Amino acid sequence: MNHYDPTGLDPQRTITDLKELRALTGDENGAQRVAFTDTWIAARKFMREKLESLPIEVEVDEAGNQWATLVGKSDDALLIGGHIDSVPNGGWLDGCLNLLAGVEVLRHIASQGTPPVTIRLVDWADEEGARFGRSLFGSSSASQHMNPDELRDLKDKDGIRLQDALERVGINIDRALTTKEQLRNAKAYLELHIEQGPVLESMNLAMGTVLGTYGVERHSIRFVGQAAHAGSTPMHLRRDALAAAAKLELEIREIAKRNGGVCTMGRVDTKPGIVTSVVETCDCLLDQRHLDADSLAKMLQEAKDASEKFAQEENVSVAWTRIWQIEPILFNEELRALTDESIKEATGTGHRLPSGPLHDAAEVARAGVPTVMLFVQSLRGLSHTKLEDTKEEHLAMSVQALDRLAYKAVEWIQKS
Amino acid sequence: MNHYDPTGLDPQRTITDLKELRALTGDENGAQRVAFTDTWIAARKFMREKLESLPIEVEVDEAGNQWATLVGKSDDALLIGGHIDSVPNGGWLDGCLNLLAGVEVLRHIASQGTPPVTIRLVDWADEEGARFGRSLFGSSSASQHMNPDELRDLKDKDGIRLQDALERVGINIDRALTTKEQLRNAKAYLELHIEQGPVLESMNLAMGTVLGTYGVERHSIRFVGQAAHAGSTPMHLRRDALAAAAKLELEIREIAKRNGGVCTMGRVDTKPGIVTSVVETCDCLLDQRHLDADSLAKMLQEAKDASEKFAQEENVSVAWTRIWQIEPILFNEELRALTDESIKEATGTGHRLPSGPLHDAAEVARAGVPTVMLFVQSLRGLSHTKLEDTKEEHLAMSVQALDRLAYKAVEWIQKS
Repeated sequence: MNHYDPTGLDPQRTITDLKELRALTGDENGAQRVAFTDTWIAARKFMREKLESLPIEVEVDEAGNQWATLVGKSDDALLIGGHIDSVPNGGWLDGCLNLLAGVEVLRHIASQGTPPVTIRLVDWADEEGARFGRSLFGSSSASQHMNPDELRDLKDKDGIRLQDALERVGINIDRALTTKEQLRNAKAYLELHIEQGPVLESMNLAMGTVLGTYGVERHSIRFVGQAAHAGSTPMHLRRDALAAAAKLELEIREIAKRNGGVCTMGRVDTKPGIVTSVVETCDCLLDQRHLDADSLAKMLQEAKDASEKFAQEENVSVAWTRIWQIEPILFNEELRALTDESIKEATGTGHRLPSGPLHDAAEVARAGVPTVMLFVQSLRGLSHTKLEDTKEEHLAMSVQALDRLAYKAVEWIQKS
Repeated sequence: MNHYDPTGLDPQRTITDLKELRALTGDENGAQRVAFTDTWIAARKFMREKLESLPIEVEVDEAGNQWATLVGKSDDALLIGGHIDSVPNGGWLDGCLNLLAGVEVLRHIASQGTPPVTIRLVDWADEEGARFGRSLFGSSSASQHMNPDELRDLKDKDGIRLQDALERVGINIDRALTTKEQLRNAKAYLELHIEQGPVLESMNLAMGTVLGTYGVERHSIRFVGQAAHAGSTPMHLRRDALAAAAKLELEIREIAKRNGGVCTMGRVDTKPGIVTSVVETCDCLLDQRHLDADSLAKMLQEAKDASEKFAQEENVSVAWTRIWQIEPILFNEELRALTDESIKEATGTGHRLPSGPLHDAAEVARAGVPTVMLFVQSLRGLSHTKLEDTKEEHLAMSVQALDRLAYKAVEWIQKS
């Protein structure tokens, strides 16, 4: 297996499979493979049917992750992972490209006889977290970053508890952490994903090697001034909470540029929120991301300092509440180098970029498995919408790059 | 009557009356005299009882305005006006101070025999517009600025139509404009009101002469950029609608200061409004006010120009929709001079200031009646809340000033 032979790899078959899945599980509003729904169950059945003709065992673990295993000469395992679930009204590629490209890689490897190491394709359960607002359920169970007591009582919009929704599909949340066992022999993890951003398209590149996933600091910031009549209160006597928030919205962009990260104020709420009153309370949501932990901490401190300064200037108060945070997760340097090679071979040009969104790969990396991701260009950077798309020539290249990387990774595992 | 004699004027009686009305029509959340409710009807009955012992006729016109008339030697009439209605959970002074101070002035004038001109105290119907969102119903009917077809189908929060709510209290909206007749012999109109702003308190003054009411330009402004993932979209590729809105919020303050008016962004709505997305659509409400029509027009043009500039800088679109406008209304210069004198006599110091909020006085002025207003200090500038308050010594001064002005105005009417 050590000399790469592309014979038998048919990237066009992946595109056909993707279209078949779209027809089966989408509607006029987009993909509807929300985790734990009947459509999601149908999508998983579709996956199993695609693997039927291969010498592959399929099992579902205690966290609901579906594993397809091509047993090799060694127990050491190369994992290829993705997720068949989508957001409601989602795109045709997010999550399932990885899996169906993985199916084609399995076909290719299986066609060449028993591989030197075991190859496993994993469909992580509920990557999107669309129904209960908690993403990465299956992979964070594997990495032991899932706490059943924090999750069991989360409710969907119909008031159904997460624990009960899981039981309906045969998952006992209190046993989900045992899925850690699945990673016991894992020596490398590969994940191909659409970029879901505009960077590759803006550089006219088909693919890129993912450096890692951004660390995230997510806060709610409340400025409180004084409601006052819009007609009777002279400008110099106002304590306008919106003014402080406006200054911060403009400053976080400078902070992001200065430090090489991203900062986003995604929501602003004004109270009393009427045309005849100065804003008394302004609540803002701030999301900050960076690939470097120190830079992320610096961006946060700079935003806090700026908010204090603006609050003082506007004679309002400011208070910060952390909503969520996660540290940056860097992928394996040796696997990144192999990914660069594979992408250059498949597309002619290499490029490295961070991932803004989180992915299951981040949890696998946190579990200690050497991990890497490949991004393929997204048209207009769109995702989580039926408008999500990628050129078919780029999809084909991405299957080729993943296949080449799988062969390189097998060799790397053997040498390690 | 030409030589002013304060004998018999008892400002403390007004304060007692105000407290009695508060006990009768308020609760732990504040005043509840919302127009056309049972509590409002009870407040009007209270007013009539206060006038019972005087040689005064009370009538209610076709627009629901209640008129108390002390017939004088001439049909020429001096009007003193206010409104007994309040917002829900309102203050104890807004609107009713004017009326109960007017009652005391009537007592004083009546105690000195038949006055040379007729004195009329008017309680305008539904000044606040709290229930249907349309203020100044009674006074704008008198000034012919009320259009029944625009108003009849307005609904309150329970779905009741304005026309039906009016019928319940005996008002036929299609006959309301006939109340114009009430102004036929009106030669001057006086209105005392709490400032509802912080200016007099900040200058340590008890009272001020009102120059007129601000003109108002009220617009909804929509900036539209592009929703994009907060993690995967580099700063330089964003089209952030909130950034343009933030720049405008900061710029309108400069525009207001430069032109000597006020500008307020009272509400901002962000869509999709989630922490993981750049803001695609940002809707802002802008209120601009100035006492000078040209300056108001200039402020509007400057804000529009600035919004276009910011939209271009941020690569977003901008669209303006007018919600409402009214021209500035200046009060009568001779009456303003008499008001200055009265305030100096009652408080020691005069001051002139514009009114940010609208008042029934603006409609009376638009109807061609020489009009003026007196403001008395509001503590902390608060109004439309149970926290609304004014020092009792200032309330007493305000009754004295209104009384002195009434005598001066009678003299002025006689000389005119």
